[in-house]
Amino acid sequence: MKTRPSGYQAIADTIRERIVAGDYTPGEKIPSIRKFAIDFKCNKLTVHRAFDTLKQEGLIENRVGSGTYIRFPEKVYRPKGIFDFHTDYLDESLFPYEQVQAVFNQLFKDKQAKALAPTSAEGDPELIDVLSHFYHVPAARMIIISGAQQGLDLVAKVFGTNISESILFEDPTYPGAISLFRARHFVMMENDGPNIEQFQQELNNNFRLFYAMPTVHNPTGIAYSQAKKEALAKLARKHDFYIIEDDFLSDFRQNTGARFVDICPEQTIHIKSLSQTTVSGIRLGFIVVPKNLYDKFLYAKFSSDIASFGLMQRCMREFIKQGLYGKHLARIRTEIKRRKSRLFEILQHAPDLSILPHQAGYSLWIRCSREINLPQVPWTPGEAFSFSSEARSCFCLSFMHMNDATFHQGLDYLQRLLC
Amino acid sequence: MKTRPSGYQAIADTIRERIVAGDYTPGEKIPSIRKFAIDFKCNKLTVHRAFDTLKQEGLIENRVGSGTYIRFPEKVYRPKGIFDFHTDYLDESLFPYEQVQAVFNQLFKDKQAKALAPTSAEGDPELIDVLSHFYHVPAARMIIISGAQQGLDLVAKVFGTNISESILFEDPTYPGAISLFRARHFVMMENDGPNIEQFQQELNNNFRLFYAMPTVHNPTGIAYSQAKKEALAKLARKHDFYIIEDDFLSDFRQNTGARFVDICPEQTIHIKSLSQTTVSGIRLGFIVVPKNLYDKFLYAKFSSDIASFGLMQRCMREFIKQGLYGKHLARIRTEIKRRKSRLFEILQHAPDLSILPHQAGYSLWIRCSREINLPQVPWTPGEAFSFSSEARSCFCLSFMHMNDATFHQGLDYLQRLLC
Repeated sequence: MKTRPSGYQAIADTIRERIVAGDYTPGEKIPSIRKFAIDFKCNKLTVHRAFDTLKQEGLIENRVGSGTYIRFPEKVYRPKGIFDFHTDYLDESLFPYEQVQAVFNQLFKDKQAKALAPTSAEGDPELIDVLSHFYHVPAARMIIISGAQQGLDLVAKVFGTNISESILFEDPTYPGAISLFRARHFVMMENDGPNIEQFQQELNNNFRLFYAMPTVHNPTGIAYSQAKKEALAKLARKHDFYIIEDDFLSDFRQNTGARFVDICPEQTIHIKSLSQTTVSGIRLGFIVVPKNLYDKFLYAKFSSDIASFGLMQRCMREFIKQGLYGKHLARIRTEIKRRKSRLFEILQHAPDLSILPHQAGYSLWIRCSREINLPQVPWTPGEAFSFSSEARSCFCLSFMHMNDATFHQGLDYLQRLLC
Repeated sequence: MKTRPSGYQAIADTIRERIVAGDYTPGEKIPSIRKFAIDFKCNKLTVHRAFDTLKQEGLIENRVGSGTYIRFPEKVYRPKGIFDFHTDYLDESLFPYEQVQAVFNQLFKDKQAKALAPTSAEGDPELIDVLSHFYHVPAARMIIISGAQQGLDLVAKVFGTNISESILFEDPTYPGAISLFRARHFVMMENDGPNIEQFQQELNNNFRLFYAMPTVHNPTGIAYSQAKKEALAKLARKHDFYIIEDDFLSDFRQNTGARFVDICPEQTIHIKSLSQTTVSGIRLGFIVVPKNLYDKFLYAKFSSDIASFGLMQRCMREFIKQGLYGKHLARIRTEIKRRKSRLFEILQHAPDLSILPHQAGYSLWIRCSREINLPQVPWTPGEAFSFSSEARSCFCLSFMHMNDATFHQGLDYLQRLLC
């Protein structure tokens, strides 16, 4: 027992730190109030109040007759409100269903296409070819995956067991990566990428991987400067670590410049979600890996689920080949611009808010200098993305997972809440 | 260096053993011929001949200018012949495509169905309900997965890093499990289930999991007797290990009796592939886990790929609800019976073959007392399923991954080959 906190806040902080550090894992039962009271040498009421705090934060939950458990993280930040400024996917109403249905029917009509036939582990060869041209990445080192989360899972498989000690993360970063890898090592993000000085200090920890979202950073929406990309690529070559380049929402930023996969392909594991640019439900993406890691990644993919769903791969292939994907992305770009300007109109009247400039993608990272007391916030709180105290005064507002009518009602709701 | 083999066969055996033990992993470069010759104190030509043997077995491969590598296992037993008696999935021609297409179109027409919307990590609630009734398993402990292989992968995630020391396997067993878990501990299969005496001895190794295919064992097609199931369930309760019950092809055996998930639900992780009963390409299945493990499995599923593909889940739901799945299974049962009797007609004339009785499913496990010298066998060799020398005289003949015409040509080919 390192610390012996006394007040209920201090006890809550200690337990929270243990959850964050992975000492308690999701679904695990934590010690009883009585046990904590003995350990912390305080009375049971104090622990009770600490538990209440953690419950309100969604970190723990009671189960009748059974005790107190660490909650499943997915549930932690899932808001129950009508207005979903939380989910960072496109709403299904923004996706051209009729076109997708037509492609499905073409696939079923064409016997050569064998709509439901399996693909080999690396994926449909023609989809790989099509994506290679669309995203300017080499087909020979590409594997089709079931979304970016699976890409990260394959990294965990290939790089083995002590992974949480082996990866450096941006601070803030994507919550799914924090929980998957039990992230422990972070480098502070500046407006043009990670703080290089701190990055160089972290090299002493001998990390093997750096997880980066250099084109549209999640959640801040910023882009790395070309100078920082070059500097990091140079460090990757010199110190022989891999950059996991999560090409998050790059489709929605103009002039993205050279990517890590272009600058230092032999040090880059490039992950691209196609669920994020279409709809979450399609569960597709791809990974481009260095030549020497290809077989290991392919084996990891095969062990995970044999191969991704063939029909959706073939559908995506046709969707891109027929130019429908390009048109869809153009429509989404316009819609993002329109909604973002409506949001800015509202938020500029809100006191105590400041919005980081140059944000691409379909979220906004917002700092709030006063406390907002709400039982259920409609957005994602900053602490989902970071363990830093600074992030606690921030929140992330995603604005593309509602249909048009709900979005406009949501704007009114935000106005009442914030202005 | 434990052994210093001299002949090329002995050297090949030693290297093979290291591959099997996981000392060399797929995609890994192995030492050069020169290096082995020094280690084994023999001349380079001998090592060269050992390498040739292993190459013919598909275990290693040369890469020009780079050296010799352990091959990706999926490639190892993938035959190139026209007649595929290897793949243990149903052929796409046996699946009612028009009906599936109609269901897809219904889903797209019905806006309430939100065809491409995501599901939560556990899967479509209505599919869970439908499967719960169809397969008589509790909905509350079910998670939809992307095939049985993902089920095994989730087990690996939940039970952690030292998993290969923690699982007892049937001998022979499913190759995908051997490679995923780097299987090391085995219990011999008899015609009514595992040898109980040997099983009890293995208890000294303190395994935490036993991987079983009790209804239709892969590859032997046998079923556990009810007495052995009861005995194993009792041991599981007493020694607190979990039985991974892979409900492989149970749809194609009559009178299956009580399953482990019925007898000892609190000790059973029940995995069911729906790809195996429909077509491989759909990538669906489910897992039913003990109550106390549910949150951990759900978290493992979420970390792996967020959720399985929603559209296929909804399609499968309607396919079952509309009675189409039941009819499909009935058709397949008839076709299995028809093809199996055709196979028996041929094989009974083959000298040196013996076929294990009471085999269900759509493969046959066959012992051959003479050596068959073929560069490319059209079936799966026994050593894919087992490290025992006995398995080397066996092979597995799957007979449902060809259309009807090819199957009949394949019969002629088998007749020429074996009779």
